[in-house]
Amino acid sequence: MEPMEPMHPGDPSPSGTRVPEDHRLARAALMRMAEAGDRVMGRLIAWCGPLRALEQARRGSLDPEFAAAEAERTRRRIDLTQLAESWAARHADPDADPEADLAAGRERGARLIVPGDAEWPTQLDDLDDAAPLGLWLNGRANLRLSCLRSVAIVGARAATPYGVQVAAQLGSELSIRGWSVVSGGAYGIDAAAHRGALAGGAPTVAALACGVDVCYPRAHEDLFGVIRSHGVIISEWPLGSHPTRTRFLVRNRVIAALSRGTVVVQAALRSGALNTATHASGLNRHLMAVPGPITAETSEGCHALIRQGKAVCVTSADEVIELVGSIGGDLAPERRGPVLPRDGLNDETRRVLEAVPARGGAGPAVIAVSAGVGLTTALECLGALASAGFVEAVPRGWRLRRQPP
Amino acid sequence: MEPMEPMHPGDPSPSGTRVPEDHRLARAALMRMAEAGDRVMGRLIAWCGPLRALEQARRGSLDPEFAAAEAERTRRRIDLTQLAESWAARHADPDADPEADLAAGRERGARLIVPGDAEWPTQLDDLDDAAPLGLWLNGRANLRLSCLRSVAIVGARAATPYGVQVAAQLGSELSIRGWSVVSGGAYGIDAAAHRGALAGGAPTVAALACGVDVCYPRAHEDLFGVIRSHGVIISEWPLGSHPTRTRFLVRNRVIAALSRGTVVVQAALRSGALNTATHASGLNRHLMAVPGPITAETSEGCHALIRQGKAVCVTSADEVIELVGSIGGDLAPERRGPVLPRDGLNDETRRVLEAVPARGGAGPAVIAVSAGVGLTTALECLGALASAGFVEAVPRGWRLRRQPP
Repeated sequence: MEPMEPMHPGDPSPSGTRVPEDHRLARAALMRMAEAGDRVMGRLIAWCGPLRALEQARRGSLDPEFAAAEAERTRRRIDLTQLAESWAARHADPDADPEADLAAGRERGARLIVPGDAEWPTQLDDLDDAAPLGLWLNGRANLRLSCLRSVAIVGARAATPYGVQVAAQLGSELSIRGWSVVSGGAYGIDAAAHRGALAGGAPTVAALACGVDVCYPRAHEDLFGVIRSHGVIISEWPLGSHPTRTRFLVRNRVIAALSRGTVVVQAALRSGALNTATHASGLNRHLMAVPGPITAETSEGCHALIRQGKAVCVTSADEVIELVGSIGGDLAPERRGPVLPRDGLNDETRRVLEAVPARGGAGPAVIAVSAGVGLTTALECLGALASAGFVEAVPRGWRLRRQPP
Repeated sequence: MEPMEPMHPGDPSPSGTRVPEDHRLARAALMRMAEAGDRVMGRLIAWCGPLRALEQARRGSLDPEFAAAEAERTRRRIDLTQLAESWAARHADPDADPEADLAAGRERGARLIVPGDAEWPTQLDDLDDAAPLGLWLNGRANLRLSCLRSVAIVGARAATPYGVQVAAQLGSELSIRGWSVVSGGAYGIDAAAHRGALAGGAPTVAALACGVDVCYPRAHEDLFGVIRSHGVIISEWPLGSHPTRTRFLVRNRVIAALSRGTVVVQAALRSGALNTATHASGLNRHLMAVPGPITAETSEGCHALIRQGKAVCVTSADEVIELVGSIGGDLAPERRGPVLPRDGLNDETRRVLEAVPARGGAGPAVIAVSAGVGLTTALECLGALASAGFVEAVPRGWRLRRQPP
């Protein structure tokens, strides 16, 4: 059997091509049935596409060819039969209704993005078989654009005033310089990093271990509200889902994968933040740690990472940007001048951005011609550029914002 | 012309061989005439010995052959004639009387040690041409034995309470585990490190930029008194000398060279402690830095060293010992068990130590026979072992101390 559809489109879908609605629905169903990060499900979808994967998951048995390949491939101790049966069992749950999930999303302002959508951050492909099947989003910012230049800031919930101060300052300085902050929305370092980022101009991304409509912790209702207005809240779990211990850990791989690098601000020797750090290293993302007083346990995890050579010691936003900004082709221009968020746009989007006038305004058709793209592409790019803060709609069409991110 | 005497005896003088008194006197005179660290003087003594070096320094002109070799060797911008004349000019100073220096030393309990003396720490040879010509010592500890397993702790005078706490704790933990602490006797980190070390059992070494009888800073009179009783104060400058800015910097090379590694506890970006750090790196000693809050300038120098990969980030005495204890042959035994100060003794001294009984006591003659060394050597080694705390004198001779360092 040949794979039926490409699993990881390297680029956002060309203009006009949309993810078929039945594929989206199938993925929404599979997100209910398989655990987030289930690598067998990841490979099954890569093998035969979400529709046929759903068929097998529903009936609780794998196609013999896939099962054989899987058994061959990994000599897994996991019982494949049992796994497939667990998918089917979840399908039997009356809550597991993807149409209802999508309807609830529409009702509460949340959207489900899947691979192939323009807003899908393709760096999640680095998670390979463990990539999310889809992501629920709630917020005004475009996730893909927000994450083009983003840094994860993570750390202990039981942060000290020192850690909170450092996380807030790093968050705000990164944001002021056009870097989005990705974090987990938790107490302590996470919240300080988001708050700092909100003080700058760049969107901030909170990846939760519960539904995007669930406020955990409760005390962050206001914070999440502001993040929805100036950034985006994301989750692999359907609306209404509650967080579990496992989900926090599984969620961490997404925080690491979305960003160019992870900064651990404060972490004791056994801390969830070190789990995110391990993901970042495994994904070849830059791993950074902030030093602190050696008299406090809250920095012991950071110092261990530095001593082991796993993390680079960073003491300022400048040092973070120097590191994360220097991947591949970005090296030379960044040494010469300031970091520009637009450096991270893909070719098509950059051409559309260059076609937008600084004064007056131009209609999408004019911009499409000038950029050499189709009208649909132009509209898609303009929408994305607007939500990332590069352009704004004016009575005469579109123009550049005076102070881009 | 052939060099007349070996410059850097690799081992302490064999028993019975003493540095000739006229050589000691000549070095005392040369220490008055040449600046500490004067590399030309270092090479001159290596070339023709201290007696002929003194002749040339007194008359203010170099032997043509040495001058030619020197000019050839370095294409120096320093005017050699002018340098030799400056030596002669200092000789004319009525204060520059080496016999008076030695007499003053005897009177005030200070001793001058020179290369070839049993107490000379041969690791100073690593300073090559810039090695001290001699060292004035005041204190009960044996300098060579004290420094066999020693760590330099340095840092800012304007230390914060955090830095003081860390320096004192490191000093005391190192001392308790048999590692001597070498520092500069200054306010702040230095003083805290010495005080911590005094709380342990190992001797502490203060290298001053003034005479060993001069109390700088004044407030450290009590501290220096205790260091003299439980450690040793050392200096390249004769009694009565006052500190100058240059002398502090020149002195730093001795702190770095005496110890197996240097720990920078707190240092701003421009700090004298970083000068010691540079010496330590240049001498292939381990360089370590303690991290601290990134919100304080006092740790910026430490973080810079860590970020540049020049210093290893250390957060405890264990980590320091792991690093400095792992040189060459020490590697294997130390990984298997605790660090023993006796590991650092030379063969002869170790044999003498092994011949000392744990109970009762034995006379030096018996010990000498048992150790297979001459009586003079046995006496010399026993004196050294006693001042390092390995053995003690009892009515029936010598025996092992119950709690060696």
